[in-house]
Amino acid sequence: MKTIGVVTTGGDAPGMNAAIRAVTRIAHARGLEVVGFERGWEGLVTNTYQKLTPRSVGGIVQLGGTILRTVRCPEFKKEENLQKAAQTLVKNKIDGLVVIGGDGSFRGALDLSRKSKTQMVGIPASIDNDVNGTDETIGFDTAVNTAVNIIDKIRDTAISHERIFIVEVMGKERGFLALNVGITVGAEVILIPEQQCTLGQIVETLKENARKGKKTGIIVAAEGVGDNAKLAQELQEHTNSEVRLSIVGYAQRGGSPTARSRLLAGMFAEKAVEVLCEEKGNFLVGLQNNSVAAMELEKAVARKKQVDLHLLELANMLAT
Amino acid sequence: MKTIGVVTTGGDAPGMNAAIRAVTRIAHARGLEVVGFERGWEGLVTNTYQKLTPRSVGGIVQLGGTILRTVRCPEFKKEENLQKAAQTLVKNKIDGLVVIGGDGSFRGALDLSRKSKTQMVGIPASIDNDVNGTDETIGFDTAVNTAVNIIDKIRDTAISHERIFIVEVMGKERGFLALNVGITVGAEVILIPEQQCTLGQIVETLKENARKGKKTGIIVAAEGVGDNAKLAQELQEHTNSEVRLSIVGYAQRGGSPTARSRLLAGMFAEKAVEVLCEEKGNFLVGLQNNSVAAMELEKAVARKKQVDLHLLELANMLAT
Amino acid sequence: MKTIGVVTTGGDAPGMNAAIRAVTRIAHARGLEVVGFERGWEGLVTNTYQKLTPRSVGGIVQLGGTILRTVRCPEFKKEENLQKAAQTLVKNKIDGLVVIGGDGSFRGALDLSRKSKTQMVGIPASIDNDVNGTDETIGFDTAVNTAVNIIDKIRDTAISHERIFIVEVMGKERGFLALNVGITVGAEVILIPEQQCTLGQIVETLKENARKGKKTGIIVAAEGVGDNAKLAQELQEHTNSEVRLSIVGYAQRGGSPTARSRLLAGMFAEKAVEVLCEEKGNFLVGLQNNSVAAMELEKAVARKKQVDLHLLELANMLAT
Amino acid sequence: MKTIGVVTTGGDAPGMNAAIRAVTRIAHARGLEVVGFERGWEGLVTNTYQKLTPRSVGGIVQLGGTILRTVRCPEFKKEENLQKAAQTLVKNKIDGLVVIGGDGSFRGALDLSRKSKTQMVGIPASIDNDVNGTDETIGFDTAVNTAVNIIDKIRDTAISHERIFIVEVMGKERGFLALNVGITVGAEVILIPEQQCTLGQIVETLKENARKGKKTGIIVAAEGVGDNAKLAQELQEHTNSEVRLSIVGYAQRGGSPTARSRLLAGMFAEKAVEVLCEEKGNFLVGLQNNSVAAMELEKAVARKKQVDLHLLELANMLAT
Repeated sequence: MKTIGVVTTGGDAPGMNAAIRAVTRIAHARGLEVVGFERGWEGLVTNTYQKLTPRSVGGIVQLGGTILRTVRCPEFKKEENLQKAAQTLVKNKIDGLVVIGGDGSFRGALDLSRKSKTQMVGIPASIDNDVNGTDETIGFDTAVNTAVNIIDKIRDTAISHERIFIVEVMGKERGFLALNVGITVGAEVILIPEQQCTLGQIVETLKENARKGKKTGIIVAAEGVGDNAKLAQELQEHTNSEVRLSIVGYAQRGGSPTARSRLLAGMFAEKAVEVLCEEKGNFLVGLQNNSVAAMELEKAVARKKQVDLHLLELANMLAT
Repeated sequence: MKTIGVVTTGGDAPGMNAAIRAVTRIAHARGLEVVGFERGWEGLVTNTYQKLTPRSVGGIVQLGGTILRTVRCPEFKKEENLQKAAQTLVKNKIDGLVVIGGDGSFRGALDLSRKSKTQMVGIPASIDNDVNGTDETIGFDTAVNTAVNIIDKIRDTAISHERIFIVEVMGKERGFLALNVGITVGAEVILIPEQQCTLGQIVETLKENARKGKKTGIIVAAEGVGDNAKLAQELQEHTNSEVRLSIVGYAQRGGSPTARSRLLAGMFAEKAVEVLCEEKGNFLVGLQNNSVAAMELEKAVARKKQVDLHLLELANMLAT
Repeated sequence: MKTIGVVTTGGDAPGMNAAIRAVTRIAHARGLEVVGFERGWEGLVTNTYQKLTPRSVGGIVQLGGTILRTVRCPEFKKEENLQKAAQTLVKNKIDGLVVIGGDGSFRGALDLSRKSKTQMVGIPASIDNDVNGTDETIGFDTAVNTAVNIIDKIRDTAISHERIFIVEVMGKERGFLALNVGITVGAEVILIPEQQCTLGQIVETLKENARKGKKTGIIVAAEGVGDNAKLAQELQEHTNSEVRLSIVGYAQRGGSPTARSRLLAGMFAEKAVEVLCEEKGNFLVGLQNNSVAAMELEKAVARKKQVDLHLLELANMLAT
Repeated sequence: MKTIGVVTTGGDAPGMNAAIRAVTRIAHARGLEVVGFERGWEGLVTNTYQKLTPRSVGGIVQLGGTILRTVRCPEFKKEENLQKAAQTLVKNKIDGLVVIGGDGSFRGALDLSRKSKTQMVGIPASIDNDVNGTDETIGFDTAVNTAVNIIDKIRDTAISHERIFIVEVMGKERGFLALNVGITVGAEVILIPEQQCTLGQIVETLKENARKGKKTGIIVAAEGVGDNAKLAQELQEHTNSEVRLSIVGYAQRGGSPTARSRLLAGMFAEKAVEVLCEEKGNFLVGLQNNSVAAMELEKAVARKKQVDLHLLELANMLAT
């Protein structure tokens, strides 16, 4: 292992910069050279990169986004693009590639590894937390706190006006974000794709709350559960309350990473460089039972991570 | 002047609690009793109130929302409701009424004053800043900063993905919020109801920016300018960029008030109590040329406050 | 188990209110009555309490501090006071007592348990994270982020003025806070009580950094490492840099809890009520390998939790 | 006017970068070239600068600190240094110099103007707000809010522990910051250099509060009022309360500027470039009665700005 590449792909997540910095400095401390490919897989296909040094990654640990940029690149899977990327790795003598991203990024890395001898290691960074093989992804804690801070503000106006709010957070297919946000803001109802909830059930909960004297309420909904604007209308018709929808949106993707997102970045980077130096194959690093560990990349990608539905029960109990 | 009432009406704004606290304590220091009517005009119609004392308003200066609650109450204008409210004022011997709210609230106060001898004084509190007779309303500075903080996060992901973002802020009829937010986040384009801007002009600006190497951009749009989702689609079609919409939403109404919103609350409250004690008629207090002043309520309400279009020119120059 | 008491003792930590709320609601859902003793052990000695209901603990999940108040009460250990507290438990038929606090609080609980049949369960809440038997305490994540946010601001002025800053964070005896803060702000040097570091070593690191072009630096120091004002002076004398000291101080104890501190509060409370209902003795609940677990209180208190010194090595590597 | 210089001198303030960006872009829009001198006056003495272009100042509006760096440079006044600086201005054909800083910076500019034909214009940027000729300086609003946010956290623990806190904010000679912070956090006592307050008076206020049931209290003190650590001890001896000191410190100098600090930066920059283009002499731009205006620099520097002591009376009334 002499030279490693770093790439951030897929949706960005706060802490990606901290991970780029950590990989660069740790690799450098072990005598490795580091290059950063730009704009996700596109940089590999087009051979666009910058050299990364301990100094060039200074002052970025606290910045949201990714200095390497990222692009969603579904056409990367095409034979032709994978070939070009493999050539880029050969051309630049890249012995190991650190892929910072989510589930789709790691599937891309495996596709590429079938064309290339370069060893791949994945660092999970995603606001969605939906990466199998790690308890938590870089950026998840930040996205949760961003949504919580925004909902804490919404609660103020919900109480003043005695309104019900549906607050939509990110999560097209998975409810990790909605679940963690919902339980920590004290949401009256949490809607996630993994657990069906009928209009009737929601109405019943809100009416029961009204009987108990709770005139306002926060419903945290993952974007993937359906048409939340329609739900707001229906709830308004079925209850005596004013119901409003607020969408947290893209702010969840940015902002300065929390301490925890930065810490994971440092710990994952250390393991990633270690795994590369051992030259044993493709791995995903992650947090398992509160320890940093590595798992075969193929195995990690083969399964879907499950939300802890017990948290939903707990949330419901806490919202009584 | 022996007893005064306080009421918060219309949309809530951060700093309303600071104003309730300030009115109560200043009035008390001048030997007055204070009662707080609940749920806006509804509390006057139904004679629902709580006694306010220096101790009962302790610990609220930093809280968003309003402890007195507020309701939008368009039917207050009805003869019957105004009569009931006037009776409530007589019944509780309310000599002066402090109305904390926006334009509509003050029109309501004038309607009520036609049925009642109670003297009215308005304290402008609105996230929209659209109250004639004051340079700034309580809550405006907070709402601007909330939106700015959210957009600072969105900018991170805009840059990572080299996308254009339309960020919609509140303002159905007026562009104060969008203008202040837009200029302070360094928006490439600001869209406000007061100044038409064609699709062609926006596209031209974005293309010109792309030529200069600016691949990302923030467009801050007041909700009142039209269908921003449609605009996002159209811009995507007419430029080579990915365009996304993010709506800041109700968080702008809540949250802990900024220092400035709290300071205005204190200064306006002092003037409001002073004006009531002078017993000279109905007034609006406000900031005029950086000094606290009072204006006849009728005159204040008669005109619409204008946005400073020069700021838009400045914003455009700053975004080059 | 019919009635349980809740008490917060020792130094306060963000998330204590979330824990009070969670214990109350979960206990209530299991048919238990809940009383909250006020002002820490003092409330047990003087029999001062309030009844806690699902409604009375509404709206506090996001608030710093503790609605039950807390007092450091070293004289609680006196025979006479323990007797009075035990009588209070009998008088109010308290079958189980939830003690929310740190190491000292749990030692107090064990002292009390020697005089009383009431079952004790500890919920670890402390900004210092120094409770054996749990990977993390409620409030630690919040305190870390508060310090990180403040240091991110200090870094701005450090860079502008090309100065070295020593930033002192809490931690009289333990370095958990300093270590986590230091690694996540990218501190050039981290000083903790557990690992000696000579003036010469620090000077050497700073000089080495200067040679590499790093003219500014952040030194994060636990308050327990010694006289940081003196250190600032000495460093200024031994380097060519201006060195300043900034003390984060009591803000670390307050503020709205982060999502993580709130989540731990909910999970710990659930386990605490479960453990009480099993009536098997005195326990501490906590996070062990990312799962909520219970440990005999006596055993937990018998040992000191150790900081992970490997994190310090990692931090040093990241700061190159 | 063909080429202008920009320099930031003295203590840094949030919004200086926004001002650098605004000056550069506005000047460029008027056809001027812009160079930025580095490290305050030192850059003029040593002829160290960078060319500033609309692109090179992109992405900095939201950053604390100053990309041009700044150094306190008391020896700038020496004949020899002023001569060198004047030569630098000649050498680079600098027709106008924008000096972004505080009172001392503008005195330096006047000293330099005696050796140079280059026209000087001052833009007031200082967290202390102590610049005569402007109602408000860039950075003041940010520093106030930083302190307020920190004190809002301290209040949580003050209430939990029923303690009195002295919170020291910046302000060696002037009380602008302490006064604005104190009134907006609802401080029980505000100590500023401009108004003596005896130990006896403070003790009396705290005792009176205790009688009214206020067991906690916040005392906001400017650093210039004396030894606040000693005051904490004395207050503890004279009251029955625990008294703690917390020093907000250097965080007040950094952080992302508030909307208001950024807005002032834009408005002041516009006026500064306009004034330079009129070529009528040395001026200070500022906010006067809520309008941007220019004042002769000599006149501005000749007087000291006074705090509004009426605000202190208001603060005391609000704290009852």
